[in-house]
Amino acid sequence: MADQRLVSVKEVSGHQSPEDCWIVVDNQVWDVTDFLEEHPGGSNIILKYAGRDATKAYSQVHSPSVLKTGLEPEKLKGALDESTIDEDWIKPPPGESAKLLLDNEKPPLDTLINSHDFEVVASKTANKKTWAFYSSASTDLITRDANKSCFDRIWFRPRVLRNVRSVDTRTKILGGDYKLPLFVSPAAMAKLIHPEGECAIARACEKKGIIQGISNNSSFTMDELRSTAPDASFIFQLYVNRDREKSAELLRQCSANPNIKAIFVTVDAAWPGKREADERVKADEGISVPMSPSKAQNDKKGGGLGRVMAGYIDPGLTWEDLKWVRQHTHKPVCLKGVMSADDALMAMKAGMDGILLSNHGGRNLDTSPPSIITLLEMQKRCPEVFDAMEVYVDSGIRRGTDILKAMCLGATAVGMGRSMLFAMNYGQEGVEHLIDIMQDELETAMRNIGITSLDQASPDYVHTGDVDHLVPASRSHPYARAIAKGRKRSSKL
Amino acid sequence: MADQRLVSVKEVSGHQSPEDCWIVVDNQVWDVTDFLEEHPGGSNIILKYAGRDATKAYSQVHSPSVLKTGLEPEKLKGALDESTIDEDWIKPPPGESAKLLLDNEKPPLDTLINSHDFEVVASKTANKKTWAFYSSASTDLITRDANKSCFDRIWFRPRVLRNVRSVDTRTKILGGDYKLPLFVSPAAMAKLIHPEGECAIARACEKKGIIQGISNNSSFTMDELRSTAPDASFIFQLYVNRDREKSAELLRQCSANPNIKAIFVTVDAAWPGKREADERVKADEGISVPMSPSKAQNDKKGGGLGRVMAGYIDPGLTWEDLKWVRQHTHKPVCLKGVMSADDALMAMKAGMDGILLSNHGGRNLDTSPPSIITLLEMQKRCPEVFDAMEVYVDSGIRRGTDILKAMCLGATAVGMGRSMLFAMNYGQEGVEHLIDIMQDELETAMRNIGITSLDQASPDYVHTGDVDHLVPASRSHPYARAIAKGRKRSSKL
Amino acid sequence: MADQRLVSVKEVSGHQSPEDCWIVVDNQVWDVTDFLEEHPGGSNIILKYAGRDATKAYSQVHSPSVLKTGLEPEKLKGALDESTIDEDWIKPPPGESAKLLLDNEKPPLDTLINSHDFEVVASKTANKKTWAFYSSASTDLITRDANKSCFDRIWFRPRVLRNVRSVDTRTKILGGDYKLPLFVSPAAMAKLIHPEGECAIARACEKKGIIQGISNNSSFTMDELRSTAPDASFIFQLYVNRDREKSAELLRQCSANPNIKAIFVTVDAAWPGKREADERVKADEGISVPMSPSKAQNDKKGGGLGRVMAGYIDPGLTWEDLKWVRQHTHKPVCLKGVMSADDALMAMKAGMDGILLSNHGGRNLDTSPPSIITLLEMQKRCPEVFDAMEVYVDSGIRRGTDILKAMCLGATAVGMGRSMLFAMNYGQEGVEHLIDIMQDELETAMRNIGITSLDQASPDYVHTGDVDHLVPASRSHPYARAIAKGRKRSSKL
Amino acid sequence: MADQRLVSVKEVSGHQSPEDCWIVVDNQVWDVTDFLEEHPGGSNIILKYAGRDATKAYSQVHSPSVLKTGLEPEKLKGALDESTIDEDWIKPPPGESAKLLLDNEKPPLDTLINSHDFEVVASKTANKKTWAFYSSASTDLITRDANKSCFDRIWFRPRVLRNVRSVDTRTKILGGDYKLPLFVSPAAMAKLIHPEGECAIARACEKKGIIQGISNNSSFTMDELRSTAPDASFIFQLYVNRDREKSAELLRQCSANPNIKAIFVTVDAAWPGKREADERVKADEGISVPMSPSKAQNDKKGGGLGRVMAGYIDPGLTWEDLKWVRQHTHKPVCLKGVMSADDALMAMKAGMDGILLSNHGGRNLDTSPPSIITLLEMQKRCPEVFDAMEVYVDSGIRRGTDILKAMCLGATAVGMGRSMLFAMNYGQEGVEHLIDIMQDELETAMRNIGITSLDQASPDYVHTGDVDHLVPASRSHPYARAIAKGRKRSSKL
Repeated sequence: MADQRLVSVKEVSGHQSPEDCWIVVDNQVWDVTDFLEEHPGGSNIILKYAGRDATKAYSQVHSPSVLKTGLEPEKLKGALDESTIDEDWIKPPPGESAKLLLDNEKPPLDTLINSHDFEVVASKTANKKTWAFYSSASTDLITRDANKSCFDRIWFRPRVLRNVRSVDTRTKILGGDYKLPLFVSPAAMAKLIHPEGECAIARACEKKGIIQGISNNSSFTMDELRSTAPDASFIFQLYVNRDREKSAELLRQCSANPNIKAIFVTVDAAWPGKREADERVKADEGISVPMSPSKAQNDKKGGGLGRVMAGYIDPGLTWEDLKWVRQHTHKPVCLKGVMSADDALMAMKAGMDGILLSNHGGRNLDTSPPSIITLLEMQKRCPEVFDAMEVYVDSGIRRGTDILKAMCLGATAVGMGRSMLFAMNYGQEGVEHLIDIMQDELETAMRNIGITSLDQASPDYVHTGDVDHLVPASRSHPYARAIAKGRKRSSKL
Repeated sequence: MADQRLVSVKEVSGHQSPEDCWIVVDNQVWDVTDFLEEHPGGSNIILKYAGRDATKAYSQVHSPSVLKTGLEPEKLKGALDESTIDEDWIKPPPGESAKLLLDNEKPPLDTLINSHDFEVVASKTANKKTWAFYSSASTDLITRDANKSCFDRIWFRPRVLRNVRSVDTRTKILGGDYKLPLFVSPAAMAKLIHPEGECAIARACEKKGIIQGISNNSSFTMDELRSTAPDASFIFQLYVNRDREKSAELLRQCSANPNIKAIFVTVDAAWPGKREADERVKADEGISVPMSPSKAQNDKKGGGLGRVMAGYIDPGLTWEDLKWVRQHTHKPVCLKGVMSADDALMAMKAGMDGILLSNHGGRNLDTSPPSIITLLEMQKRCPEVFDAMEVYVDSGIRRGTDILKAMCLGATAVGMGRSMLFAMNYGQEGVEHLIDIMQDELETAMRNIGITSLDQASPDYVHTGDVDHLVPASRSHPYARAIAKGRKRSSKL
Repeated sequence: MADQRLVSVKEVSGHQSPEDCWIVVDNQVWDVTDFLEEHPGGSNIILKYAGRDATKAYSQVHSPSVLKTGLEPEKLKGALDESTIDEDWIKPPPGESAKLLLDNEKPPLDTLINSHDFEVVASKTANKKTWAFYSSASTDLITRDANKSCFDRIWFRPRVLRNVRSVDTRTKILGGDYKLPLFVSPAAMAKLIHPEGECAIARACEKKGIIQGISNNSSFTMDELRSTAPDASFIFQLYVNRDREKSAELLRQCSANPNIKAIFVTVDAAWPGKREADERVKADEGISVPMSPSKAQNDKKGGGLGRVMAGYIDPGLTWEDLKWVRQHTHKPVCLKGVMSADDALMAMKAGMDGILLSNHGGRNLDTSPPSIITLLEMQKRCPEVFDAMEVYVDSGIRRGTDILKAMCLGATAVGMGRSMLFAMNYGQEGVEHLIDIMQDELETAMRNIGITSLDQASPDYVHTGDVDHLVPASRSHPYARAIAKGRKRSSKL
Repeated sequence: MADQRLVSVKEVSGHQSPEDCWIVVDNQVWDVTDFLEEHPGGSNIILKYAGRDATKAYSQVHSPSVLKTGLEPEKLKGALDESTIDEDWIKPPPGESAKLLLDNEKPPLDTLINSHDFEVVASKTANKKTWAFYSSASTDLITRDANKSCFDRIWFRPRVLRNVRSVDTRTKILGGDYKLPLFVSPAAMAKLIHPEGECAIARACEKKGIIQGISNNSSFTMDELRSTAPDASFIFQLYVNRDREKSAELLRQCSANPNIKAIFVTVDAAWPGKREADERVKADEGISVPMSPSKAQNDKKGGGLGRVMAGYIDPGLTWEDLKWVRQHTHKPVCLKGVMSADDALMAMKAGMDGILLSNHGGRNLDTSPPSIITLLEMQKRCPEVFDAMEVYVDSGIRRGTDILKAMCLGATAVGMGRSMLFAMNYGQEGVEHLIDIMQDELETAMRNIGITSLDQASPDYVHTGDVDHLVPASRSHPYARAIAKGRKRSSKL
């Protein structure tokens, strides 16, 4: 090494691009340009030290001999001329110190790596009322939390040594082809968190090839959504109005709109739930509202955005009304909000095209069962329904593994509502980023249980022993009769 | 729009009442008086911006086109004359900033929206001794907490698409008609938290059409209660006195009092429980009591209000004594405090008119079973009791969903004790507010499981799989014999 | 009232003793001397206001009319002369402000009301090493915590309407009569927390009529204990020495000592457990111990007091050695530390007089089963043992309810170790106070489940559904054979 | 005592070595040199007071009479001459005050007494990136935490009165003899935490007589490891490369290396898991990396060290490829990463020499089953596998009790990965210390359940009732057919 050429720090610093990259390790100067693509650790980590001294980072990971045996001799450009070392050379490379964020400032989108991150950011940066309306759920939040924890208590049974090089998440829903078994659950008033509201969601879904559910309480009209995303596919969530003619008009609009693929009649919100976080924000403001004639009335029952908005919904809707819906549309009709095997069976008998198992994200009745439990109940008590119509699941989906578990247990597709609203905090790009994350998580999970397409998903890949006791086994309660007799006697007194 | 009339901020500000209401959106001035009643979001939210600029609130929720398409053209009064904008115009509407409360100050009653809120406020604003006496329970608080958590672990099985427009919570109890299947559980010394004590509760119950239970340890006499609430219905909770004549006198008073509908003989407090929070407050004060002859004696066993008050209660009460009670009153006689299916059966055989399943709010014996578990035990082991007499439940009821679960599982009605005392912190109005809250929660829950009257409540609407292992299945323990034999042998040594 | 006599504050203040007690309520002066004994709330609360104004305290609890209707007219001594009110009169009564304690100061003994209180005080006031030695348990503390929580998960099934006026906790143990089914578990080195150590415990047990267990590692000799408490009853806990002659000598001393009622041979500490809190205190000090030759050796394995003290114990003890024990004593011989139904059965076959189910307070092997679970296992798998010999339980007893549960499930008596050491923090008086507390809690629990003597305790009064899955049902594991075969094959390789 | 010789403090101080040790108790001077070895509490505690006053420490533990009765009279050297007491005499002995450590400073190795301690120290002293890479696991960390908690929920059934004087942990693995049934699980990049990386682990394993697993991603080459530890035994963990020739080359190297005892083909990482802690460190730094062409691509999927390193691994590996592996080596071939009884059975049928049940420490797929649950599943569903090949377990082993439980349930040996990396924080000595700790814990556990060699370990010594519901009982899900039929129908739409 005595006759090695001396290389100055200035010369080294001149080779700092991906096309011409030198680094220094143990005072030896190497040209690693050709090696960038081959590096098992990726080129990024090397480029961080392009034109610099990489000794410290290198020796944390590699044995001293690796460079010498891995690179051809001519890549060694010489020895560092230590006499040329100056202050700049000694400084750490850029990016060593992390950027600080204020607490109410949105971090860069690419630092959000899962659906929980979007929720955390929204909790800090959305306004108080919006956060309360989106995040709130019924009374003690038991169903909201169980929606998630029941997924967590279902275990995979992964299989190994299967070729999972390419994986395919494409899914057929109601006869249409989509890139994922995931749709955006219809949710009200996306404008609260971003001025482009449902329009931005529509463009994101169109781009990513998934279905968007449109709420009856959408901030934008169906025409506005269609014009912003002409190739999008929608399902329309109908809240049947006390004034049937208004609903009939909506159904006519749906029928005329080719982008709308199905009507989802909402049945899990017969009466608006008591979402206390939502009602508290209202209550606080109500203190000094000066002239409201309806104030007293609202005060007693709370007056959150949820209750106020539900005023027009008809709590008198019955199975009979579904025939009326059919008369006003030729599109597929599904029920949104089935919470029991009994009603799944009735929906099948009523000729529905599908059912969405949902408890409204835990927003309507606390201790109503998690949807994934209802899915298990259907397997126990009415498996024939799976053969007759499509079954969707929402409420509690936060991970790609959750999607896969629902698919394994018989779902056709799943919906995400709240998380998508939280992603709207970043506009269209936020929603696209969340969809990408869900796709990546789903693909990772599929590969790691050993399947490559969703029609391979089956109950054999999951174990539900930790939640099976939560699943009702039969409808008729053995003691129902004695109690009924008691009631009859009592009412005669 | 070039020829739009300009409207000054002063003119707009003149239209700020429900009868004459203008708002400004995107610099257009609209008369929305006629629209107030139709607004799906309620009139309140609009009236907040009456005579003001509503652009920001409007655009959070609505698409720009909604006003134009929804209102007739003549409602557009012109364009805002921006040259007239002044400081007042720019100020936020009243009520945007929340009122601050000191920590020991009671917040306004209408900001309390559930029973937990009343407890939280009482914990901060009642005096130390009152809080200790009301909130304390036996030793490690296991039963007190399980009373609530067992309700939380029972899941609904909601049914959909049923006409729930009108819902009826009326209930027949012991032949009388009441507005709710809810009564105020008898509880001692309501005066501790409010000078009007049980009198205010009586007036609230009278007004709301529910039964009030009167404790033997009430702060007011039966006559005082009757005179303050002449149309009220009471049940009288009897602690049988060691001196039977004193109890006989009370029973005679009850018999003569038409407002008293039944006698509830207390059986779950044979001996006063060890309520440590209660005893600690006493203990602290005891340190420097100067001359008490009974001090030493009290010190060792603690001396909370609970133990001290129980001095007169006869721990020798047996089934035989119930005949004696019957001899002193013609009113229905029920047992308060049954904790096992065995005793429910014995009560039936003893000809009782009803039983109140209760563990005294967890105040007497820790790890005694939650009442809702005893209700399930009765279904398993003696369903015939439901046909023979009425079954009430208290201990742990905090939500309308709790009431409904008890009703589904066979209860005739339920009682709330502690929560009502905490509501008394606000006097009669507080108790009325809590009753309204419970009614609203109950109605919401009924509608959302798909029933409209309480005789439809049945076990088919709940799933108890998460607590079934806590329910004893049979009385005789399989190993009881071997142990008994061992004891016999041992005592012969 | 116009002609009422005026009474000065000075005159009122003169009547402030139990024998002559006046109080003022609503400015009326009453002589309540004769009423003191009758007051349902006890005399203490009145005496606090003797010679003072009691209006505020009175009206918190009583209706205004009570005094007038309850006392004879001549007890009204007149109206308070308000012109005589001075500063002293207005002051609050003594004892209204609580005494402040420093954090490391022991609070007065009578403010400690349960066994947990003693533990909390010891954790703050004992020296670091003592606390570490007493409180520590094996590795992750799972067994230590489960010892308690398994009791908490067993529910009572209380029965009502039984005459529980008088309750009797007397118990026969190994033919002797004791006041409680409770003994002090043998525990090492009581002197660490109090100079009188085991001597004070002996005097407390003698006074309260319960058995004291003496550890082989006691700070005092058997003779010293006997001379300080000549009427005490002891059991002697033997750790069999590697040098058998030393144990033989101890057994000879026991045989000669009439106060010793039985020998408990320790079998649950074949090897000293790893008590990390204990070892950490040692380890810290070890850093600078200057000249210890055995230092290195101790460092690696930790060197807590527990391990160091166990050096002489023979890990080679077997069932055969029990014959040798029998040869050296005529006293009853029991095993201390049985942890399985299998060994309970073997103890019976070996002719033992009793077994103490114990896991050494969780101090020896983490995840060894809680003793109460072993008791349940015995019921399932070898109920005949209960008929053949006495069964004691320790590890995890903290409450009177715990004692009663063990008794209901077949125990003859239970032991408390750690709690008694913590009570020794207050010397003999502390131990007596704790025994009183346990007796009071036990009696309260007995009455509230409806029994009056311990031979009535039976499994019918408890429900174990929440822990039954922790109880092994059979000995032979179904897969043991396949695994054994695999091992054989493997060892042949 | 009047004629006792007076001894000055200076004279006492002169006898302070193990060979000549005096102490003072109650002003009496004793020569305890001969007693040092006999002291039940060990010599250390006495030597701390050699040449000093030991009264306080002595009287905390011993009765006053012990010294007099235990030592011969001539050992009493006289009375302390109190007039000679000076300041030095009164000072506490050295080591009474603990050394303070800075938060990011490594405490002395001998103060670390269990595997958790190593983790805590690493979390504070390793650099941020290293900690993130080592400690991170897949998404919500459910599997990582369950790996440990499932061990904690398995209870021992200890047997007593067995001769456990000598205990033997030697184990035969794949025909070789090792000192422990414990090996170092292969883990990547040990250099991150210490410059000697895998080399130091190799020397520690060689010295302690256990197997080291070498990761395909080791920081050092196989030759380097062999030359640093010539007598070590290795297993080589193969990640099969997308470029098969590179793997073939590695297999050839293994075949030529006599220290390598087996090839473990990795099958539980078909696709790199999403380790969010790892990805966040990368993501933060990524913010300001200036010129990376692959940046955008990495951003969306995160870019932690885990994913980046996995680039070369072939996700297309199948059972067929195992034949190819066999063709390239004559060494035993095992599968690393089996997670189901089904694949255990397939491995047996494929003629493998062993399987390592592993979920990659929870790093790959969240809610994949804990390895100990898979072991239980094998017992239920394919016990014949234990007879046909060796079964190893890793993921979640933190305690000697965990090792013993796995052995009882059929494992041949277990591996520890993360903990060994954390121990490497202290270099070779740290790994040796951790191995010693595990051996000590294992021996303690063996003795305390009553066994002395590992072939006695059997399922009879454990009870799994608390986790049995987590174990799948059969492969074919009863509802799989209905769901499959539904899918078929749906895909035809």
